[in-house]
Amino acid sequence: MSHDIAVIEGDGIGQEVVPAAIEVLEALEVDFEFVEGEAGDAVREATGEALPAETYELVADADATLFGAAGDTAADVILPLREAVDSFVNVRPAKAYPGVDALRPETDVVFLRENTEGVYAGHEDRLSDDLSTLTRVVTSSASRELAEYACEFVADGRGPAGDSEEGFTVAHKSNVMRETDGRFREAVLAVAEERGVDVDEELMDAFATKLPLDPSQYGVVVCPNLAGDVLSDLAAGLVGGLGLLPSANVGHDNALFEPVHGTAPDIAGEGIANPTAAVLSAAMLLEYLGHVEEGQRVRTAVESVLSEGPRTGDLGGDATTEEVTAAIVDRL
Amino acid sequence: MSHDIAVIEGDGIGQEVVPAAIEVLEALEVDFEFVEGEAGDAVREATGEALPAETYELVADADATLFGAAGDTAADVILPLREAVDSFVNVRPAKAYPGVDALRPETDVVFLRENTEGVYAGHEDRLSDDLSTLTRVVTSSASRELAEYACEFVADGRGPAGDSEEGFTVAHKSNVMRETDGRFREAVLAVAEERGVDVDEELMDAFATKLPLDPSQYGVVVCPNLAGDVLSDLAAGLVGGLGLLPSANVGHDNALFEPVHGTAPDIAGEGIANPTAAVLSAAMLLEYLGHVEEGQRVRTAVESVLSEGPRTGDLGGDATTEEVTAAIVDRL
Ligand SMILES: CC(C)[C@H](C(=O)O)[C@@H](O)C(=O)O
Ligand SMILES: CC(C)[C@H](C(=O)O)[C@@H](O)C(=O)O
Repeated sequence: MSHDIAVIEGDGIGQEVVPAAIEVLEALEVDFEFVEGEAGDAVREATGEALPAETYELVADADATLFGAAGDTAADVILPLREAVDSFVNVRPAKAYPGVDALRPETDVVFLRENTEGVYAGHEDRLSDDLSTLTRVVTSSASRELAEYACEFVADGRGPAGDSEEGFTVAHKSNVMRETDGRFREAVLAVAEERGVDVDEELMDAFATKLPLDPSQYGVVVCPNLAGDVLSDLAAGLVGGLGLLPSANVGHDNALFEPVHGTAPDIAGEGIANPTAAVLSAAMLLEYLGHVEEGQRVRTAVESVLSEGPRTGDLGGDATTEEVTAAIVDRL
Repeated sequence: MSHDIAVIEGDGIGQEVVPAAIEVLEALEVDFEFVEGEAGDAVREATGEALPAETYELVADADATLFGAAGDTAADVILPLREAVDSFVNVRPAKAYPGVDALRPETDVVFLRENTEGVYAGHEDRLSDDLSTLTRVVTSSASRELAEYACEFVADGRGPAGDSEEGFTVAHKSNVMRETDGRFREAVLAVAEERGVDVDEELMDAFATKLPLDPSQYGVVVCPNLAGDVLSDLAAGLVGGLGLLPSANVGHDNALFEPVHGTAPDIAGEGIANPTAAVLSAAMLLEYLGHVEEGQRVRTAVESVLSEGPRTGDLGGDATTEEVTAAIVDRL
């Protein structure tokens, strides 16, 4: 069975790291049909639209999508694309790797970020010359769905262990957002209780203090949308930056995979971007499509290259994207 | 001229560190009249109300307030008290000290957090069994007022320098909250431009990655309310935790000073709490009341004790609160 994969390189180094990830996928014995779509700053420049309707349709109809990065238009591209794949959870692993300089090498955390609500679902209103409002939205149903995913995630042993073996941490701000984050919190705790999964709770501000102090106490972390955005980026700072972090926007029967990094305009076009985050996103795509063993082969190859080289400039080496990609393919 | 200071110890170690801070204030040649008020879990237990009306009035009428900590009732106490002093900015310095174990010893950042709006001003609605909303509020006037404070703050040389000498960083999420954080951003940039102050901008998620990677590039950081809450707590994790961090809720002609830490129920009542954050809050109170030189004397004494000891258990020592306080008073 062949998988239809939508491929959107986007802007900047997206055009370098996505081809690298595809080179890795093509080196495996898995049948893919890749179809390219356009999105991002360059398309907006040319057509006035950052996300053409054909691209949206392509992504909605694919089995899965591999996305690179978009520049100033990032929000105009990625937020609708998360909708196109009907994604209710953004899976964001933040792991330090041997051979990579990290402030907290013991970090191994997976964020499960609610992907449809919170301030992201907010319609905003300009009520006067002085006043604007945003309506933050939280439903029990979306919170429950996220929690059910989290329970399966830990039951399947897909997360790192952290302190709460076979459980997860939920981070929120229900002491201030009592009704909305209160609803989120209650829904998550109720599902975990039904499923017999242990949950630790943290206020999101306290979590932001404790994660750098001792990341080893955390494994799987479940958060509302904006909290997941900020706290997972904080974890990126502890493992050495955004350069290595993959992510998955998972929906009911579709998903989109993207490196967490952006377009890196300072090095774009030079062929020296680090392809690791895109390749690890491809590994998540493989696992999502049921090719768990192949996903694991890709991870192992990536880890071996990270620890032994060759390395790109961001990791202190001087290898090109192509050299690093070839080394990964070599070790598959 | 004597200053009327409202004193609210609150719960847990608040009852130990606030008296320590007062001992330090009393050792100076400044005339204070201290009046105690009650708030927190214990008062709620006894009276049903976490913040009695007399306490609110006491704080509203004082020249300034020294607050300790409250337990489960923290939000019920501190949010109304910020209103009682009409506070538009929460000043949160996060600085690493010689002699204290810090993940990033080069951290020296002051957060200026908007203190009245954002999700904190939000009324929440339960719209159905499944759906709740919160109305996030942003006004240009509050954003401008914060920015004006920030411009004066840097012009007076009160902030650490960071990368942008004599300027500040503004962190927000205007790529998603376009109307509300867009309004905040525009108001802050406009004021800075009028005053000729340099501003660097960061998206709050990117800031959360970059702060741990290199805190030395930041000095004064201006944020909306919740962003300031989370990002300043993140900075706390880089300097060794909440134990040393003071804060000021500054209003138009009133202010409330509080350690950032909580009630520490695990050690409360044992006389071993670290008084540093409360004493540094007292130093901010002195400076606010115009006793800049005395504030500096307190800081210098605290820094000397931090680097030479005695130290409380959280810093690896075995001194009591009283011993540390006496050492600070000794070095004034
Ligand atoms: C580009 C932006 C809209 C996006 C987000 O906030 O979700 C990004 O920061 C991310 O986390 O993928
Ligand atoms: C207790 C809580 C309401 C408060 C806040 O969120 O402002 C606290 O976290 C703080 O930062 O002082």
